[in-house]
Amino acid sequence: MSDIRTLALACRDAAQVMFTLDTETKRKLLQDMAAALDAESESILAANALDLQQASSKGVQGAMLDRLRLDEARVAAIANAVREIATLPDPVGLVTRCETRPNGLSVERVRIPLGVIAMIYEARPNVTADAAALCLMAGNAVILRGGSEALHSNVAIANVLREVLERNHVPQAALTLVEDLRRETMVELLQLSDIVDLAIPRGGEGLIRFVAEHARVPVIKHYKGVCHLFVDATADEALALDLLVDGKTSRPGVCNALETLLVHRDVAASFLPKAAQALLHHGVELRGCERSRAIVAGMRAASDDDYAAEFLDLILAIRIVDDLGAAIGHIQRFGSDHTEVIVTRDDRSVAHFVRAIRSAVVMVNASSRFSDGGELGLGAEIGISTTRLHAYGPMGAEALTVERFVVRGDGQVRHPTSKLS
Amino acid sequence: MSDIRTLALACRDAAQVMFTLDTETKRKLLQDMAAALDAESESILAANALDLQQASSKGVQGAMLDRLRLDEARVAAIANAVREIATLPDPVGLVTRCETRPNGLSVERVRIPLGVIAMIYEARPNVTADAAALCLMAGNAVILRGGSEALHSNVAIANVLREVLERNHVPQAALTLVEDLRRETMVELLQLSDIVDLAIPRGGEGLIRFVAEHARVPVIKHYKGVCHLFVDATADEALALDLLVDGKTSRPGVCNALETLLVHRDVAASFLPKAAQALLHHGVELRGCERSRAIVAGMRAASDDDYAAEFLDLILAIRIVDDLGAAIGHIQRFGSDHTEVIVTRDDRSVAHFVRAIRSAVVMVNASSRFSDGGELGLGAEIGISTTRLHAYGPMGAEALTVERFVVRGDGQVRHPTSKLS
Repeated sequence: MSDIRTLALACRDAAQVMFTLDTETKRKLLQDMAAALDAESESILAANALDLQQASSKGVQGAMLDRLRLDEARVAAIANAVREIATLPDPVGLVTRCETRPNGLSVERVRIPLGVIAMIYEARPNVTADAAALCLMAGNAVILRGGSEALHSNVAIANVLREVLERNHVPQAALTLVEDLRRETMVELLQLSDIVDLAIPRGGEGLIRFVAEHARVPVIKHYKGVCHLFVDATADEALALDLLVDGKTSRPGVCNALETLLVHRDVAASFLPKAAQALLHHGVELRGCERSRAIVAGMRAASDDDYAAEFLDLILAIRIVDDLGAAIGHIQRFGSDHTEVIVTRDDRSVAHFVRAIRSAVVMVNASSRFSDGGELGLGAEIGISTTRLHAYGPMGAEALTVERFVVRGDGQVRHPTSKLS
Repeated sequence: MSDIRTLALACRDAAQVMFTLDTETKRKLLQDMAAALDAESESILAANALDLQQASSKGVQGAMLDRLRLDEARVAAIANAVREIATLPDPVGLVTRCETRPNGLSVERVRIPLGVIAMIYEARPNVTADAAALCLMAGNAVILRGGSEALHSNVAIANVLREVLERNHVPQAALTLVEDLRRETMVELLQLSDIVDLAIPRGGEGLIRFVAEHARVPVIKHYKGVCHLFVDATADEALALDLLVDGKTSRPGVCNALETLLVHRDVAASFLPKAAQALLHHGVELRGCERSRAIVAGMRAASDDDYAAEFLDLILAIRIVDDLGAAIGHIQRFGSDHTEVIVTRDDRSVAHFVRAIRSAVVMVNASSRFSDGGELGLGAEIGISTTRLHAYGPMGAEALTVERFVVRGDGQVRHPTSKLS
């Protein structure tokens, strides 16, 4: 048997133990883990120093190097994140519905853990603790496969967490870190369809496409966030301006940042000059359609590629549309099913927009930047799904569980003729 | 562009139309479809006669031929099934949760259709109407790929339904039947991950494994149902006998039939002789462990293969276990995550069993044969999932939708410093 299969089988056995843990036991596990991370800060930083040294010697610098870097404050933040996850409502055991059938059967839907979750991720070592804590809190076992840049840091963090499992009589395999980072080993992991219940890739589009291409286990993913803001004819323009600036400039490198502004033609002449002034003030490069360039001078022409792009940068594509229907058509053509915003005072426009747009998150008069597990009340986020299956949008602990049926009777049979008594 | 991709793209466009249909429109569509099936019974039977003729000439006979056969009563039953689906609660638009965040944002979770669903199935032509109606009622477009034996029947049924779509101004592509039945075309369909949101295979294990192996789109499936009945030490033996006979004999060829009986050693000597007598009376072949063979003479020895088998026949594997934990261990080792039954009068045994067993359906003192969408209150069933993701157990209309976020605000921004007004 291959090494990765052996590891995964042990993780599956540990998942059976995780499956039966009660809420208090899981909370204590996570609290102990947070304390252990604080206590072992020094050894984690020593391991991180090795990663930083290797990265530097390979010429990594700037933001890339910074993402890899831990310091005392960052380790404390990682521990606090685990501590917060320990306080989340436990989705496991939640009875979501209960019905009594005409024959007297009581039919409950109850949430249970998924089982074994494989997390595939890149440079940030904090994901090791975050993802592990959220998976465990939802009663799952987890296989972590991080990036090679952060291997020493990830091993150090995982070892701290695994020792806590052992002290609490949970098999260490419930948190399995893959140290063999060859691509073929990852592919093998992604094909263990009798063991792994779900793979969640987190990172750049290249990694996510690789996972989607090679997986034979279910994958929940999102490739990109091409988020739109549509300013309707009846919009409060000052409010629209706030949402536009917040959406585009407050953190342009994340998936819930705005990439395209759509403006109803009736308000374009009034709104666009103010929008352009505010955005240029924030250093945003504007790329517009022909009609918008007639209103705001000096904009570069926007191509279809611009409308399809996730810039992740201070660049905004702009288009004037004839009406709400044209805005919806643009989003259906260029959108990524992530998050779309409408700014309007017209309830019919809201209803029409919500009805026609099938993205994971629809925002009415609110910033796209709220499209985030924490902001939407999930407590913590394991990722964002743009796969319209199982979970759609930000995913918290509940998305790491599934509903099943518990049926209670007093001897009901389907075919009473088979009844003997 | 390939033909199947062209078909699928048209189906995706039609899914946008389906996405926005209100409940009454969908109900009317399905009622019209039921009426049209009744009205066109003759042409459907004529097409079915061609299928039967071809099948006979290939030597198909018996149960296989019967599954393919339609008559007036069966067409009327198909129409009635569509009529019933038209009366189901519409899952689309259902607000499952609503919360107001501290910053005043209202966060709703609302069910929306999945989009494009590909059904891959075998001989029974009724699936063409059943699956189409359920997918459409949940606001989806559907691509149907049936078996070659039923092609004429499937085309006739699909054409009747598609004409109803057109009369109601819904693109016919919302119900697309694939007539090119080459395996490579099916594989291409299963890899259209930018178009198809979900594939559901229904049929034998060979078909399901083929779909799982070749799909790059999400698949919900179940391979087999190895359902267990555990008779606990405190069981009401008469009740246990009823459930055993119903589970094994009322319809042995279906996935929710029992395949294995587990008996607590404390009641084995009392229960097993009665069980054997009743089952032998129904023509059931018994295969037992060593200890059970000491109680019931003449049983063949059960192998591990027997315990792992879905007999789909009048055969039952039997094992005496030392306690509840041993029963759970057996199910964890040999089970298929489908349905398990416990017969007991001990609440602690119930709690322990429900907690430890992670199958899709757990039955307490009720027959495994109730593990069915209709019986559990789903109204109709598109399939049963043993994939612990999205849906687990019998799947009705709701399982063909997903929750997304609708967020309403009055100008909230994430970083108030970007606020200008």
